[in-house]
Amino acid sequence: MAKLLKGKDVVENLNGKLIDKVKELKENGINPTLAILRVGEREDDLSYERGAKKRCELVGVEVKVVSLPIDVTEEEYLDALDKLNKDITINGILMFRPLPKHIDESKARNMLLAAKDVDGCTDLSLAGVFTNTKLGFSPCTAEAAMEILKFYDIPIEGKKVAVIGRSLVIGRPIAMLLMHENATVTICHTKTVDVPSITKEADIVVVASGQMESVGADYLKENQTVIDVGISWNDEKNKLCGDVRFDEVENLVSAITPVPGGVGGVTTSILVKHVVEAAIRQSSL
Amino acid sequence: MAKLLKGKDVVENLNGKLIDKVKELKENGINPTLAILRVGEREDDLSYERGAKKRCELVGVEVKVVSLPIDVTEEEYLDALDKLNKDITINGILMFRPLPKHIDESKARNMLLAAKDVDGCTDLSLAGVFTNTKLGFSPCTAEAAMEILKFYDIPIEGKKVAVIGRSLVIGRPIAMLLMHENATVTICHTKTVDVPSITKEADIVVVASGQMESVGADYLKENQTVIDVGISWNDEKNKLCGDVRFDEVENLVSAITPVPGGVGGVTTSILVKHVVEAAIRQSSL
Repeated sequence: MAKLLKGKDVVENLNGKLIDKVKELKENGINPTLAILRVGEREDDLSYERGAKKRCELVGVEVKVVSLPIDVTEEEYLDALDKLNKDITINGILMFRPLPKHIDESKARNMLLAAKDVDGCTDLSLAGVFTNTKLGFSPCTAEAAMEILKFYDIPIEGKKVAVIGRSLVIGRPIAMLLMHENATVTICHTKTVDVPSITKEADIVVVASGQMESVGADYLKENQTVIDVGISWNDEKNKLCGDVRFDEVENLVSAITPVPGGVGGVTTSILVKHVVEAAIRQSSL
Repeated sequence: MAKLLKGKDVVENLNGKLIDKVKELKENGINPTLAILRVGEREDDLSYERGAKKRCELVGVEVKVVSLPIDVTEEEYLDALDKLNKDITINGILMFRPLPKHIDESKARNMLLAAKDVDGCTDLSLAGVFTNTKLGFSPCTAEAAMEILKFYDIPIEGKKVAVIGRSLVIGRPIAMLLMHENATVTICHTKTVDVPSITKEADIVVVASGQMESVGADYLKENQTVIDVGISWNDEKNKLCGDVRFDEVENLVSAITPVPGGVGGVTTSILVKHVVEAAIRQSSL
């Protein structure tokens, strides 16, 4: 039976550390603050916003929501963003996307100061992930997966890792983060021939294909750690499922993240961690 | 006997195309121009400069050298760079590095406009390599290796590639460029355990370890294409050698770049190609 790499334990550990750090910062007059820039009232934005606010409040990070109407002009949107960039009381900015079509998202995304880009979406943040320098922040999901591996003391250095998926929010960045920790990483994608021959050779398999239950026992073997980044609603089973066929592999591999209850829950905590880090970097501490 | 992937043939083909393109641009009033920004008179800078000028002249690209004394202040250096950034008659800028210690190289490097960064050294150029967007330009050596593979019709899509080395000038960028062309790439480095077990499984092996003659028959097998990016002076043999033990593998693999005469010679042509591309991007053509 595989060990369950539960996000909950990672989050509790992270929250404990963040509470102490925020307390220390506040004693030094620093008040870590996240700004959330939202256009309209999309349900998934609002749901994520509630989660982020709750996590922030828990550790003492303040949240300022800037809510703009769905028909906001590009100029007004960029102006709101510019104000947040320049506001020294704001340490991190979460910009909900996708933006309405009449706003140039790439322009908006790269206007966001990398130093405040706690969601890791700007080109400079991604350059930092590639070059291993603190230009901005890593995409939260990729760092959440790293945080899980570290919390559960899964060795990374010198290990073989197969990453399935090459997106900019998870596949490519986690490949780089793992390589910076001295893993030997292979990135598999839709054009990879015989993915199982690669994943079967790995010590760690990160599944971020975005294809529900696409990876089963035929891809894996004993003694592996599996990080399942997928999360989709399975109509047939009437429940949330990952990219891995969990039931099929839980008796095969040595450790696996459950879905739900794995990577997903850690992501918001990483966002909060980034706000605290941003506050530290922006201060002279 | 392996097929020799000679840089010379790639360069001739590239030059032919560039000559036509530059001619067409000039007919449209566009005059592709490279600025070289040099501090002091280091012999390797001067040697590279002579090579670049020759290649530029050959295809009709103009070169403007800005030569600054070794004791130039940081302010003066950045001012010279700023002038080149703003000069609309300059399409590409080659900034010789390392800079003298009293000039903040990272600051200078990132002041360079990505649109003119024909050497692929800025964070935004590297972000573009990572995200597969034309923010700047790829590092020339990485693109030279790609150009060789393409010229010799070596299939990339769906193929397994092992890259030895993870530097920002070659290992990491070429891994990304190959992945964007749908190869399945594994990056090996100093902390990789059992590199030969990985390289022996690959269709293409890119050797950029920076360790002279470190890769021999024990790393390779038949039917492979080997790109040797290394170039070092071998005192014992009294000649230039690559990172691969050429004599040992030329009867084993199916194709290999010689050293000298392989990747190195193509690099300068890629620089010139980037100047022409920069001129096109900056125009409205």
